[in-house]
Amino acid sequence: MPNLYDRFLEFLSPAEILEATPALLNDQRRRFVSEPDIILQPHSIENVQEIMRFCFEHRIPVTPQGGNTGLCGAAVASGGVLLNLSKINRIREINLADNSITVEAGVILQNVQKAAAEAGRLFPLSLASEGSCEIGGNIACNAGGLNVLRYGSMRDLVLGLEVVLPNGELVSHLQPLHKNTTGYDLRHLFIGSEGTLGIITAATLKLFARPQTTATAWVGLDDIESAVELLTAVQGHFAERLTSFELISRYALALSSEFSRLKQPTDANWHVLLELTDSVPDAALDEKLAEFLYQNGQENSIIAQSEQERLDLWTLRENISASQRKLGTSIKHDIAVPIAQVATFVRQCAPALETRFPGIQIVCFGHLGDGSLHYNTFLPDVLSNEAYRYEDAVNTIVYEHILACHGTIAAEHGIGTIKKHWLPSVRTPSEIALMRAIKAQLDPHDIMNPGKLLP
Amino acid sequence: MPNLYDRFLEFLSPAEILEATPALLNDQRRRFVSEPDIILQPHSIENVQEIMRFCFEHRIPVTPQGGNTGLCGAAVASGGVLLNLSKINRIREINLADNSITVEAGVILQNVQKAAAEAGRLFPLSLASEGSCEIGGNIACNAGGLNVLRYGSMRDLVLGLEVVLPNGELVSHLQPLHKNTTGYDLRHLFIGSEGTLGIITAATLKLFARPQTTATAWVGLDDIESAVELLTAVQGHFAERLTSFELISRYALALSSEFSRLKQPTDANWHVLLELTDSVPDAALDEKLAEFLYQNGQENSIIAQSEQERLDLWTLRENISASQRKLGTSIKHDIAVPIAQVATFVRQCAPALETRFPGIQIVCFGHLGDGSLHYNTFLPDVLSNEAYRYEDAVNTIVYEHILACHGTIAAEHGIGTIKKHWLPSVRTPSEIALMRAIKAQLDPHDIMNPGKLLP
Ligand SMILES: Cc1cc2nc3c(=O)[nH]c(=O)nc-3n(C[C@H](O)[C@H](O)[C@H](O)COP(=O)(O)OP(=O)(O)OC[C@H]3O[C@@H](n4cnc5c(N)ncnc54)[C@H](O)[C@@H]3O)c2cc1C
Ligand SMILES: Cc1cc2nc3c(=O)[nH]c(=O)nc-3n(C[C@H](O)[C@H](O)[C@H](O)COP(=O)(O)OP(=O)(O)OC[C@H]3O[C@@H](n4cnc5c(N)ncnc54)[C@H](O)[C@@H]3O)c2cc1C
Repeated sequence: MPNLYDRFLEFLSPAEILEATPALLNDQRRRFVSEPDIILQPHSIENVQEIMRFCFEHRIPVTPQGGNTGLCGAAVASGGVLLNLSKINRIREINLADNSITVEAGVILQNVQKAAAEAGRLFPLSLASEGSCEIGGNIACNAGGLNVLRYGSMRDLVLGLEVVLPNGELVSHLQPLHKNTTGYDLRHLFIGSEGTLGIITAATLKLFARPQTTATAWVGLDDIESAVELLTAVQGHFAERLTSFELISRYALALSSEFSRLKQPTDANWHVLLELTDSVPDAALDEKLAEFLYQNGQENSIIAQSEQERLDLWTLRENISASQRKLGTSIKHDIAVPIAQVATFVRQCAPALETRFPGIQIVCFGHLGDGSLHYNTFLPDVLSNEAYRYEDAVNTIVYEHILACHGTIAAEHGIGTIKKHWLPSVRTPSEIALMRAIKAQLDPHDIMNPGKLLP
Repeated sequence: MPNLYDRFLEFLSPAEILEATPALLNDQRRRFVSEPDIILQPHSIENVQEIMRFCFEHRIPVTPQGGNTGLCGAAVASGGVLLNLSKINRIREINLADNSITVEAGVILQNVQKAAAEAGRLFPLSLASEGSCEIGGNIACNAGGLNVLRYGSMRDLVLGLEVVLPNGELVSHLQPLHKNTTGYDLRHLFIGSEGTLGIITAATLKLFARPQTTATAWVGLDDIESAVELLTAVQGHFAERLTSFELISRYALALSSEFSRLKQPTDANWHVLLELTDSVPDAALDEKLAEFLYQNGQENSIIAQSEQERLDLWTLRENISASQRKLGTSIKHDIAVPIAQVATFVRQCAPALETRFPGIQIVCFGHLGDGSLHYNTFLPDVLSNEAYRYEDAVNTIVYEHILACHGTIAAEHGIGTIKKHWLPSVRTPSEIALMRAIKAQLDPHDIMNPGKLLP
């Protein structure tokens, strides 16, 4: 459609039609480039509706985009409208009685965290991309991140949604209702739907009390089984006060040490970084944690004695990602297994990979507390510069072991473009048929982010 | 079908075909009586599948039934098979590493609580019917109850489901995965679907740490606004330790006092019964609560000094239901509003009811902490013996005020038979169309609990 620009100008202002820029077109992993016919950035919800009505009538594909930090190629447009939601970004309301905040889709995650903090509350979702990802994208991907162990993932944080359907209709349920059972739950269909069912324009989210006290420990352990036992023991003792429980392999620590001030808090095969927080002040939390570790026979451990020591421990954890770059291109996995299966997965998958790819390096670390692992694989030198050619072969081995352990091949990044051919390995034909029927009912002309998620 | 009995005997044992009894046929409120052609109680999941395959092929309606404690006439069969799930009742697994328990649909709620307790954990769902309602029914209705403020309702407690679809296919996702984003979330469609999409046969549920310390207070207040302010203050101070926050009107207390040992802990227009629990022992919790109430200017309050005093306070709250029977037949409401709207609702609804029904008595109490209220209305004597004739008129007034306050007409009991004509007041035509499309895809012959939920 050559005259799309003029047609949209009939109801949008010129500022709502954007020039193409690399930031809008390139995806995070630089594996895909959008090729939209036009890029729109509406300034009002009415204009989102107008755009959808027009596209519905003219069967024009629409790819919603938030902060464009997604890792599955899900916000990449081939033709049609790239619909950027970043200017739909008001914080509409904070409601302290209901512990809720109502924000529009384009609000950057960090700004929601800040608004909550200013009101004396916590919005717990936290990802490394929080400075640029947006609430609409977080909901569309069901984002996870660092605090899932205690607060759940995005799905658990959404009380209500406002959505523009593919035909332009606005459906709004932004009440902070804690009990509500009126027919099939449609909110949860939109959460995790990766832009394929409609445009999320706003959401009512849960707020929590802010942590007042923190206690942090680093524990060295012989094997993963011991780490899982420690997790069960800490949860039995400290319950919801346990906020983080990170697992780090010897190799991951060695890599990270090179970049960090603190080198090796403990000498062991596996390490755990664990943190307790209490939303009520408790000056003795450190001591209680020390006492617990001692009683539990965890002598190969240290407790952070100052905020600086705490940051040093976390830096060791956070530097793993950067420190592994020298190993070449990695094939990464967004996987999770039941916690009781983590050890089995790790013990069995590595030898299978080594048999097929002798010399492969595995950097394994992650949120043991919620069962999700970073499992980054680096092919040996000879193969490394063509790593993506071997991606499917590596994935096949990793996913086979994940599925044998009743895990998931997509923990928190979604399916997007890159995993849709894997969906049938985790969902039955009848489930996929139901997904298609849901999609067909809401989006009969298949204009919403076509080609994503569903195989 | 006269030969249904013989046909089912081809693959079921005689013990799986039941005689009709009042307990199976009468609904809780004695407003409906089931008239099934046959009552089946399969002993295995394979037999549930066989039954569904047969009914699918022969277009025979199937009404699932758990403990038959539902309050919306949703487990009432007119014709076809009444399918009682009570013998599908194994506790399959407790997984402490993942804090999960996997149970079959027919396990009585109290037995799940017990199994969790024996493993040193808490399964927090708690309802007055817990001695007879079953997990399948709890999931199908998205049950709520006493602990929603802290732990959420059934929807929040389900990690995975196993379901037999209307065509007999088994779909099983019983992993305790804390992060998983693989296409549209179908689990949440089944939760709250009231038996209209398929048979829930098992579920993996979340477990929590057991409370170790409890502190309980009774506070007298001038008005609901003060109760909401107190709630916000307590949550700001004690955060997730706040487990219950019950609101009781002067009139509700007066009724209950007649039946209770303790008469009137405080003299006030409104009363709050609040309870803190900590999953870590804290001998000073009582003192902290007393100190907080004092600082907060709540002098019209008492703190339970012993377990007996605590029970006496709770008895006052629990006796309200029984004590109001002398007022006649009540028209009850299963409603919730945002907490910030509770005062507006209560202030505005009562005068409207009084205008239309002079002399109407309102017994108002409930879980202020999650915004759900018991709002029981008793018509004046002259109308009382025909109360149900006026049900629609009373509901119209109550629901109008609920909707004006952005509340819900069905907080935790569901829609069933009695509220389906109200569904269009809370869901748009496009939402109801989507629900119908979902139902049609899974249940093309409309055999699953036909006539329930959808108008
Ligand atoms: C450094 C880094 C670290 C990361 N860490 C994590 C992590 O720990 N946990 C985690 O879960 N993810 C992580 N991610 C992935 C990513 O940040 C999240 O998936 C994020 O939620 C995406 O938000 P976004 O606004 O950038 O969405 P986009 O990338 O713009 O879009 C993602 C998907 O959502 C759809 N979408 C966006 N907005 C809307 C809307 N308003 N309505 C409907 N659909 C919409 C798009 O069409 C697309 O399908 C990380 C990414 C980076 C770059
Ligand atoms: C005294 C009393 C107090 C109550 N208090 C509360 C309360 O505080 N909070 C609350 O939420 N509810 C409460 N209820 C209502 C009721 O107990 C709950 O709704 C309960 O969850 C119903 O479970 P059930 O096993 O008895 O289900 P049933 O009554 O047998 O069935 C209810 C619905 O679920 C469907 N169903 C049952 N089993 C299955 C299955 N396996 N697969 C698919 N569908 C199925 C039925 O078809 C029906 O639609 C109370 C009831 C009573 C009598």
